[in-house]
Amino acid sequence: MSGGAGLVSLVGAGPGDPELMTLKAARRLAEADVVLYDALVTPATLALASGATRICVGKRAGRRGTSQEAIHAIMIRAARRGRRVVRLKCGDPFVFGRGGEEVLALAGAGIPCEVVPGVSTAVAAPALAGIPVTHRGLSSAFVVVSGHAEAAYRPVLESIAPHAATIVVLMGKGSRAAVAELLLARGWDDDTPAAVLLGSSTPEARTWLGPLSALASAPLPEGDLPGTIAIGDVVSLAEASAESAVALPARQAR
Amino acid sequence: MSGGAGLVSLVGAGPGDPELMTLKAARRLAEADVVLYDALVTPATLALASGATRICVGKRAGRRGTSQEAIHAIMIRAARRGRRVVRLKCGDPFVFGRGGEEVLALAGAGIPCEVVPGVSTAVAAPALAGIPVTHRGLSSAFVVVSGHAEAAYRPVLESIAPHAATIVVLMGKGSRAAVAELLLARGWDDDTPAAVLLGSSTPEARTWLGPLSALASAPLPEGDLPGTIAIGDVVSLAEASAESAVALPARQAR
Repeated sequence: MSGGAGLVSLVGAGPGDPELMTLKAARRLAEADVVLYDALVTPATLALASGATRICVGKRAGRRGTSQEAIHAIMIRAARRGRRVVRLKCGDPFVFGRGGEEVLALAGAGIPCEVVPGVSTAVAAPALAGIPVTHRGLSSAFVVVSGHAEAAYRPVLESIAPHAATIVVLMGKGSRAAVAELLLARGWDDDTPAAVLLGSSTPEARTWLGPLSALASAPLPEGDLPGTIAIGDVVSLAEASAESAVALPARQAR
Repeated sequence: MSGGAGLVSLVGAGPGDPELMTLKAARRLAEADVVLYDALVTPATLALASGATRICVGKRAGRRGTSQEAIHAIMIRAARRGRRVVRLKCGDPFVFGRGGEEVLALAGAGIPCEVVPGVSTAVAAPALAGIPVTHRGLSSAFVVVSGHAEAAYRPVLESIAPHAATIVVLMGKGSRAAVAELLLARGWDDDTPAAVLLGSSTPEARTWLGPLSALASAPLPEGDLPGTIAIGDVVSLAEASAESAVALPARQAR
């Protein structure tokens, strides 16, 4: 390409299965010159960008990722050379994806930019295990937080009245004990149904189901599989439609 | 087709633009024999099911839709005849879509059923107006409710500490005065940024931006355009990246 600055597309990759990408996302990947992707983007998804230079900028457990400033600099430099740039993020780019910061950096540099929303893992991970985040008579609201920083989720989880909403904790595997303790102290019932959803929509998908009081000690497999936690009465529906939920050996019957 | 019962796919159509459907959703529509769709599914989306019998089962303002029981009966009858059935819902099928009830009805009748998650309007409508539902330093949580029934959203909105989360109200146009009054009484600041997002991702998309204290009297166009409300400090970012936001004549500068 030549001429003006190339477009930067902030693209949601969805929960993992490339079939759960949007038509627009697939098109942007197929046309991309450069793709900057997060560590948890699946190889099958990346394969849609076969003609692009692909740069992993994500963090994984124990390894440092590219700094946010460096990500901005790479995108801006490539766009100024007229490249079509895709910034590919798991789930939706504006749900805990630092997408807002990237849009501001690009706007500040005068780079044309668009957002391509994706299927958020916050909704899809429960759905693929048969758990609707809302359901008449069980829950008419849901709250989404990230498990990465207790200071961030504590104020909202402490203020919500017990059972007033379904709770979804993204990247929640490491914080499950703290979240369970907080909710039980707030007055949620010990036997509130809870789920840990690992690797949702991928061949490695695993589901743990059990009461909130057992969430802290849920026996989960080691490794890097991303984990979403769902808590609330709607989780009881998982049993009724568990077709896509692969039981862990230690899955608890309720 | 002949042989056993056909598959019923509960498919999310996304926020309106057919390009924001997933690859899997597009495939299911192209292969469908029967499609049952909600009133707000866009014609461009339905066009992807050119070979199917298409049945509108949705409600619109002032007109009655097909009863939930009748929807179940149509799906079960078609599946028993071996038809590939798509139940097409706006956004995601498990976010205020009664998808859970339909899965239970199908499971009860022994009909094979799958859920194909979609891009939820709860996240996409703000995103397409430049509003990330989470943003470092502004919001690390979001809450999604439906504006259809005050009894459903009041408990959660009353319990959440002011400014502890971004608030998203789906189908919120008619309830905006009640929601604003509730939040102001709960202690949210008068000048909390708010947005009404109409017809998101469609050619008719319109955005109103203003302070929470003006939300009740926001001058919105007449008609059936679905409306999503977003409230919280993240809404202030809409101005920085308003490329895709088409201003209403009465748009308020902040």
